[in-house]
Amino acid sequence: MRATVYNGPGDVSVESVDDPGVTTPHAAVVEVTHSAICGSDLHIYHGVTSAPGTRPGHEFVGRIVEVGADVQRHRPGDPVLVSGVIGCGTCDPCLRGWVVGCRNAGLAVFGTSPALPGGQAEYVEVPHADRFAHPMAPDLDPEAAVMLTDILPTGYLGARRADITPGDTVLVVGLGPVGMFALQAAQLCGAARVLAADTVPDRLARAEALGAVPVDAAAGTPSQVMELTKGVGADAAIEAVGSDATVNDAVMSVRPGATVSVIGVNATLAMPYPMMLALLRDITLRATLASVPSTWPDLLPLVAGGRIRPQDIVTHRLPLSEAPEAYRRFDAREEGVLKVLLDPRS
Amino acid sequence: MRATVYNGPGDVSVESVDDPGVTTPHAAVVEVTHSAICGSDLHIYHGVTSAPGTRPGHEFVGRIVEVGADVQRHRPGDPVLVSGVIGCGTCDPCLRGWVVGCRNAGLAVFGTSPALPGGQAEYVEVPHADRFAHPMAPDLDPEAAVMLTDILPTGYLGARRADITPGDTVLVVGLGPVGMFALQAAQLCGAARVLAADTVPDRLARAEALGAVPVDAAAGTPSQVMELTKGVGADAAIEAVGSDATVNDAVMSVRPGATVSVIGVNATLAMPYPMMLALLRDITLRATLASVPSTWPDLLPLVAGGRIRPQDIVTHRLPLSEAPEAYRRFDAREEGVLKVLLDPRS
Amino acid sequence: MRATVYNGPGDVSVESVDDPGVTTPHAAVVEVTHSAICGSDLHIYHGVTSAPGTRPGHEFVGRIVEVGADVQRHRPGDPVLVSGVIGCGTCDPCLRGWVVGCRNAGLAVFGTSPALPGGQAEYVEVPHADRFAHPMAPDLDPEAAVMLTDILPTGYLGARRADITPGDTVLVVGLGPVGMFALQAAQLCGAARVLAADTVPDRLARAEALGAVPVDAAAGTPSQVMELTKGVGADAAIEAVGSDATVNDAVMSVRPGATVSVIGVNATLAMPYPMMLALLRDITLRATLASVPSTWPDLLPLVAGGRIRPQDIVTHRLPLSEAPEAYRRFDAREEGVLKVLLDPRS
Amino acid sequence: MRATVYNGPGDVSVESVDDPGVTTPHAAVVEVTHSAICGSDLHIYHGVTSAPGTRPGHEFVGRIVEVGADVQRHRPGDPVLVSGVIGCGTCDPCLRGWVVGCRNAGLAVFGTSPALPGGQAEYVEVPHADRFAHPMAPDLDPEAAVMLTDILPTGYLGARRADITPGDTVLVVGLGPVGMFALQAAQLCGAARVLAADTVPDRLARAEALGAVPVDAAAGTPSQVMELTKGVGADAAIEAVGSDATVNDAVMSVRPGATVSVIGVNATLAMPYPMMLALLRDITLRATLASVPSTWPDLLPLVAGGRIRPQDIVTHRLPLSEAPEAYRRFDAREEGVLKVLLDPRS
Repeated sequence: MRATVYNGPGDVSVESVDDPGVTTPHAAVVEVTHSAICGSDLHIYHGVTSAPGTRPGHEFVGRIVEVGADVQRHRPGDPVLVSGVIGCGTCDPCLRGWVVGCRNAGLAVFGTSPALPGGQAEYVEVPHADRFAHPMAPDLDPEAAVMLTDILPTGYLGARRADITPGDTVLVVGLGPVGMFALQAAQLCGAARVLAADTVPDRLARAEALGAVPVDAAAGTPSQVMELTKGVGADAAIEAVGSDATVNDAVMSVRPGATVSVIGVNATLAMPYPMMLALLRDITLRATLASVPSTWPDLLPLVAGGRIRPQDIVTHRLPLSEAPEAYRRFDAREEGVLKVLLDPRS
Repeated sequence: MRATVYNGPGDVSVESVDDPGVTTPHAAVVEVTHSAICGSDLHIYHGVTSAPGTRPGHEFVGRIVEVGADVQRHRPGDPVLVSGVIGCGTCDPCLRGWVVGCRNAGLAVFGTSPALPGGQAEYVEVPHADRFAHPMAPDLDPEAAVMLTDILPTGYLGARRADITPGDTVLVVGLGPVGMFALQAAQLCGAARVLAADTVPDRLARAEALGAVPVDAAAGTPSQVMELTKGVGADAAIEAVGSDATVNDAVMSVRPGATVSVIGVNATLAMPYPMMLALLRDITLRATLASVPSTWPDLLPLVAGGRIRPQDIVTHRLPLSEAPEAYRRFDAREEGVLKVLLDPRS
Repeated sequence: MRATVYNGPGDVSVESVDDPGVTTPHAAVVEVTHSAICGSDLHIYHGVTSAPGTRPGHEFVGRIVEVGADVQRHRPGDPVLVSGVIGCGTCDPCLRGWVVGCRNAGLAVFGTSPALPGGQAEYVEVPHADRFAHPMAPDLDPEAAVMLTDILPTGYLGARRADITPGDTVLVVGLGPVGMFALQAAQLCGAARVLAADTVPDRLARAEALGAVPVDAAAGTPSQVMELTKGVGADAAIEAVGSDATVNDAVMSVRPGATVSVIGVNATLAMPYPMMLALLRDITLRATLASVPSTWPDLLPLVAGGRIRPQDIVTHRLPLSEAPEAYRRFDAREEGVLKVLLDPRS
Repeated sequence: MRATVYNGPGDVSVESVDDPGVTTPHAAVVEVTHSAICGSDLHIYHGVTSAPGTRPGHEFVGRIVEVGADVQRHRPGDPVLVSGVIGCGTCDPCLRGWVVGCRNAGLAVFGTSPALPGGQAEYVEVPHADRFAHPMAPDLDPEAAVMLTDILPTGYLGARRADITPGDTVLVVGLGPVGMFALQAAQLCGAARVLAADTVPDRLARAEALGAVPVDAAAGTPSQVMELTKGVGADAAIEAVGSDATVNDAVMSVRPGATVSVIGVNATLAMPYPMMLALLRDITLRATLASVPSTWPDLLPLVAGGRIRPQDIVTHRLPLSEAPEAYRRFDAREEGVLKVLLDPRS
């Protein structure tokens, strides 16, 4: 089959590789129909996180083509979405979908190491398919489904874990795809007003079209938030960038007692944090890596009920064969490029 | 001044009465600009709850015309909305706006006894005006403001106290004005789907236009809810009628572990309740009388942010002089009559 | 083997019956070492709930003697405690231990119908043993373990679902074994003061010895609670009797905004409930049947840590052969009889 | 009158100063009967936080001797406890006792600047006495009451904001007086087990006597916690030291999904925080400065009910005249010195 392969910094190619098979009784093989490039794939592309030979892709949906003997929920031909992140599949937290809490150190992300090849490919083996693959209802748009495998759950948990109550003013810092979903999830949690901060004009315009108040981060986020809230500060903040500076911006923008919910992937082990200020203001800093399957019971009905349309975030669709070009354009943050899909069938 | 007076069952008239004044240092007199008839005013109209001589009206907004010596927040000329329900104004629960929790037995509703004349009149004395009158922002539609004095807070608390989490299917039983607001508040709390039950076709149509799934209660609410939820039951229910039968319908329509939130005013002291069923299914039955001021910090921003447009519920506007006719038509549930305003200035 | 059999009202006997075996791959057979008589067994004894031929007993612990092919957690010889209540064992709520929420109508109690023979016997077949039997740590007192199979979880959930916060005054109505555990669980939840109501002097004395304030229910519970709380009412109440009158006593004894948590098994489908009063006071009525396995992650450490000593409630130990006599004395509420164990090995 | 005065690093003396009076209508003057030295007073003593001339002391109780015209709750002769921390006294958060949320930048601590002289003195003026002084019940031990003015509220909120649920294993880092109260508050919140870390043997022994498991921090806290929790980590942690290292120890000692509740006063604005690890483990870092009056409704009943005996922490009682010696011994962490009281009447 064909699969995207990371060869080294700035270099991905589509190669012919062995077809995957079912190697454990609880696994299934999925034929990928829709795959996406995630902002965190750029960490691989930049040579920061993964070894050459890694086959990226943790956002994908498709059809079951083979199942192990112990798989009970799925049969060949069934359309499924697959969690981009998995756990051991058997401990209590995994049974509840909370893979971050896995008791057996099973937390892993598809496509981040050679041990778990990803979904920017024609086929993928999915371990513990009963837990980590989920049936797709016939009326679920597959492009919406791809968003349910990682970034909508991430934005959603960012909002859910921000302690939002109806009527709140919520700051979202960073308006990439995850931030856009955090914005919409904050509205679903009852925010009266979302303040949406970024430096890119077309992202600010898109946020405004979704009902948010745009905040040009280039002009200083905390000062503008203070002005918009008459000196009080936002009731909650969601950080969706992943830099030390934006976390600190969020902390400086909230009122006493607020929660700053961090979903931007931040690689630092020594982020400078204004502990004294946090103490004088009763601030909560909460970090979340999305345990994708735990969000499906909430998000599938919200998508089915039309409360959120995640497919609207897709701006580009390319065939798998053009993955190198897709990475290049996404990495360059070309005007208008927000979310890029790859089609392994073409 | 002129005021609506209840004379006996089915008989209200507009009479000339003494102008109110400030009788305590913490009180203010409000000139009423917009007043509404509430469904619970019909309990008065039917002779169930109040003595002849009662001057009804607990939904009104207006302008301050006189303040007592201890009033600090308001000055003559200030536009204000007034809570339809008040407490002692000084105990800890009252300071937090939770008048139902008043420690000094101060809970009272405007316009339900001669001791606290109501707002279907030209002027009203408002006790503890710093607590129970709230400044109206210049951009707040006065008709929206009237809804903030009783029925939007009621519908809102009905939803807030129904333990809704995003993605839930929520049943609303009763689509009068309060039920309509409960429906919209359930959406603000993240409901994926609201099932809206009533027997009146134009109310069902209005609910559907708001995004809900209409359920014709005449055909049996629980059976239809079970069908719509594939036998599981609704995740939460809000009862906005006030009859024993509709409370029981709600209980029979929810899944195990659900909350049935009752906001319909029910005068019974011996409602038959299926305790055994509730126990076998871990059901929570929660009743709420709206502590109006406690909801303003949430609802004023939600209205200002355009997340809810309460003024859209108003279907009829009549001069105060036509109060008797307004009562008659509202009581008759004439086609298309949902919410009736009275204008004391005409 | 020998088993207790219900023959008709007031008539149980110990009979020789067929040994149980493993009839499904997920089942196990347990040799019972300790069994108890529950207050709800008296409903059987009185002929209210179960058919003749029922073999009672839903509180028991023992040793695994045989396992089906799919059982993974247990091996013959392992000591286990068994949940008195089970579900389908496979749906999401059952995976979380919340058997009341079973999606497949699998909720059942051992020993309440001939279909699921109980544990006042030498051996019991336990379906879905991986879910509903739990390993006993070597240092867990078996008599404490028996309490973990039903009544401690019931008392515990009664407290947990009463919305207690530290500093609260909590009323417990009914001081049988379940009420005694509710009392102690309320203390674990931070109650400053537990008011403990019953009519039986030795139960009141035992409650006082546990640190509670005894309330002689014969003299009227609500009036005494109001006096003890200076007219405010209790912050929360737990009803552990199961009669309409005690539920209403609890409702009349709490402050506005409080929760009345019902764990007393009440067979009525039409309990008279003071709905109007509940509404005027924002009362929550919450009913709970204990989903036993859901409580083990909390209770096993609490018992291991010495925070609660459930074995202290046992007052009588009889051989299985004396089950008829044990039932007779327990049913007669003989002085000093609080909790009776049966030993199937003698 | 006599008052303790800070003259410069390591130098406090007892001086004769002007008697305070009532300078605003809402203030009262309190004659101090019991005062304490707080660990945070050592920041003053070391010259870190306050200017020479500061009169320290934010833990004190006494008797009202004079009240302003607007004071309603207190009369001369009334015994009161006084919050060590105050706010503007009029905004909504202050009305609820949450002074950290003060909307008018009114947050201040007695005895930390010349503008608000403290309570290691014979008399103190207390602003907004209706809000920040609370009547002492006749049966409240005054030494217990002193603990209610700062450090018991701090330890209590540390536990309350640690998201403890019954059955949890809770780590407390730092066993000074605040940590000792956090330990006991964690037990009140239902902890099955408290792991108590410090380097001082007599503090570890005292923690063990309170039912905790001692952890010698000198041997490495995280590794020992992991061993005591079989590799899982603590369910919650409370940091009561105030150093970057102990915060990081706490973060490294908890399980995924846990909350680290920081109450140790930490003066850094750039604490190194392992953000990546926090994200991969869904960690919540919550900081709290105690809004003392908000805790009284919980803590006064808990003390009255005997659930906690805060007076037991007092190890030394000296006359006010010996304040310099008291500071010296407290600062030296002399063996057995845990909490030192000063008596202004001798």
